[in-house]
Amino acid sequence: MSTLRQDPTTRQWVILAPRRAARPHEPVELPRSTLPERDEQCPFCPGNEDQTPPEVLRLPDDGAWRVRVVPNLYSALGGDGPAPRGGAGPFREMPGVGGHEVVIETPHHDARPDEMSLREVTDVLRVWRRRYLQLLARPGIRAAVAFKNFGRLAGTSLVHPHSQILATPVLLPRMQQRLEVATRYFDENGRCVYDEVLDAERAAGTRVIAEGERFLAFEPFASQTPFETWIAPTTHRSSFGDIDDGETRDLARVLRRVLAALRRAAGDPDYNLVVFSAPPSESDEDAFHWTLRVLPRLSTPAGFEVGSGMSINTVAPEDAALALREAARTE
Amino acid sequence: MSTLRQDPTTRQWVILAPRRAARPHEPVELPRSTLPERDEQCPFCPGNEDQTPPEVLRLPDDGAWRVRVVPNLYSALGGDGPAPRGGAGPFREMPGVGGHEVVIETPHHDARPDEMSLREVTDVLRVWRRRYLQLLARPGIRAAVAFKNFGRLAGTSLVHPHSQILATPVLLPRMQQRLEVATRYFDENGRCVYDEVLDAERAAGTRVIAEGERFLAFEPFASQTPFETWIAPTTHRSSFGDIDDGETRDLARVLRRVLAALRRAAGDPDYNLVVFSAPPSESDEDAFHWTLRVLPRLSTPAGFEVGSGMSINTVAPEDAALALREAARTE
Repeated sequence: MSTLRQDPTTRQWVILAPRRAARPHEPVELPRSTLPERDEQCPFCPGNEDQTPPEVLRLPDDGAWRVRVVPNLYSALGGDGPAPRGGAGPFREMPGVGGHEVVIETPHHDARPDEMSLREVTDVLRVWRRRYLQLLARPGIRAAVAFKNFGRLAGTSLVHPHSQILATPVLLPRMQQRLEVATRYFDENGRCVYDEVLDAERAAGTRVIAEGERFLAFEPFASQTPFETWIAPTTHRSSFGDIDDGETRDLARVLRRVLAALRRAAGDPDYNLVVFSAPPSESDEDAFHWTLRVLPRLSTPAGFEVGSGMSINTVAPEDAALALREAARTE
Repeated sequence: MSTLRQDPTTRQWVILAPRRAARPHEPVELPRSTLPERDEQCPFCPGNEDQTPPEVLRLPDDGAWRVRVVPNLYSALGGDGPAPRGGAGPFREMPGVGGHEVVIETPHHDARPDEMSLREVTDVLRVWRRRYLQLLARPGIRAAVAFKNFGRLAGTSLVHPHSQILATPVLLPRMQQRLEVATRYFDENGRCVYDEVLDAERAAGTRVIAEGERFLAFEPFASQTPFETWIAPTTHRSSFGDIDDGETRDLARVLRRVLAALRRAAGDPDYNLVVFSAPPSESDEDAFHWTLRVLPRLSTPAGFEVGSGMSINTVAPEDAALALREAARTE
């Protein structure tokens, strides 16, 4: 029989209905990439820098670059300036001001995050932090999200390793809802609900995948989808924007380990990486705790999920965690 | 430049960033199905009735059936009985009681909703209503959703026409949120926000696709995805459970027209059908208005959507509505 579990950080229930057929398979060795190290047609490859808009950041400042940030050529949002609300009757609209940037993570067309060096992944996370803070500091910006789409099912068609940061002139519904739940929890219990979750996950142990010096990786108790993974700072931090250099390095270490294990344990799935964070120095900083989430695209949300907002997960997080721990060990 | 639009029924903003390449294409004639009328391997085909659990409803009661309802062999939820909350620390869980049924919509393996007769589609909608009401009447059930997954991208692998009804022992987050917004709107304005939307859509006309005697089909002002379509009763009704026989017939007429137009205008996309409804006789019945929504799967939600809960839509609803109206006219 299935069970329902409630995510204490959102108060939403998920239906956990594990199926034998959907069980994690044995770790497999995957063939290496057949991509070239450089693709002449790729706008993100070295030598094609003129095919992107002018860069807003590069590492290092001169010479051959390791990381570049450019405005998205197909920006969903862009430009500064006022964002007055308009519209008629019950309808409201406003101009799409904001920012939408692409982080080109490496000059190597055939690189993958799980194979990139610790230094390379650390560089990318530091660039995320810098652009996240700079975009949030722009007038009129209310929220920003750093994310990565890995593979077609995760919403990308460009294989050259890249991620994105999108900054919006309105608050984000999913973040608002999480902040509300966390604030109410803090008000009632005098403690951050995420800190409670981290303590409970460590005590249970069954869903933990890896622990670094400053970060814990685990499958959440009420995982919405197979192999959903959270990486959380083990000391209380409400904003990704406040991460320091030592922390980015430890985060990179844990992230690489999780991604390599995921690749072997779950058959190299497409996935999204998303930073769930409050803006820095918010009043909710005691109540909220940021996380970096790995969201593999191993299932398709159907009519029920779309209509109800409730998920049906066919892989128990304890089974997924076991498979990931084993894959990490045999690496 | 893109614009942001707010859905007055959820107060959520969507980013509307139309792209030339994503524009609706010209209506096309599609090849007819190459499926057989009956497939010996299909558990939903006549002659294979013993491959499903015993039916809970059939039309007609005896002789050859036109519609059958059976419990889902892979039930996400099932069984009656109490649903006590358990769990330790911050974690809550409960047994997965509830109902999960499959509506086998026709004996014909190769049928499609847009090609089924008016009588056939009407039959299916009446069966939805009956099972929706019966599941909601069971002890411990708090909510139910009738939905259909058409095609692989919409979450199904069985081609034989079927839909599902899932009844849960907890409220559904998306419905709760819609009821809250509608109730607050009613409290402030003394009117159902959906009635305001229907009046405004009729007055604007640019997003209307078809109007029956009792139903209006339109692309909502703040469409989340390309070709998202709402079909709403034109007189105030809060629950799908209260639909009468004349209304099911008119709804079937409008739905068939929308699905046929969608097939021609948008290249035969996979889609979900979902009934967004309050349970019958709720206290919110003045504030809420049920809709049947057609949600084509023409885009992939990526990291930003997953993380923020905000959508980026690349097709303006006015363009989609124009294409659908033209496809409906040249039928």
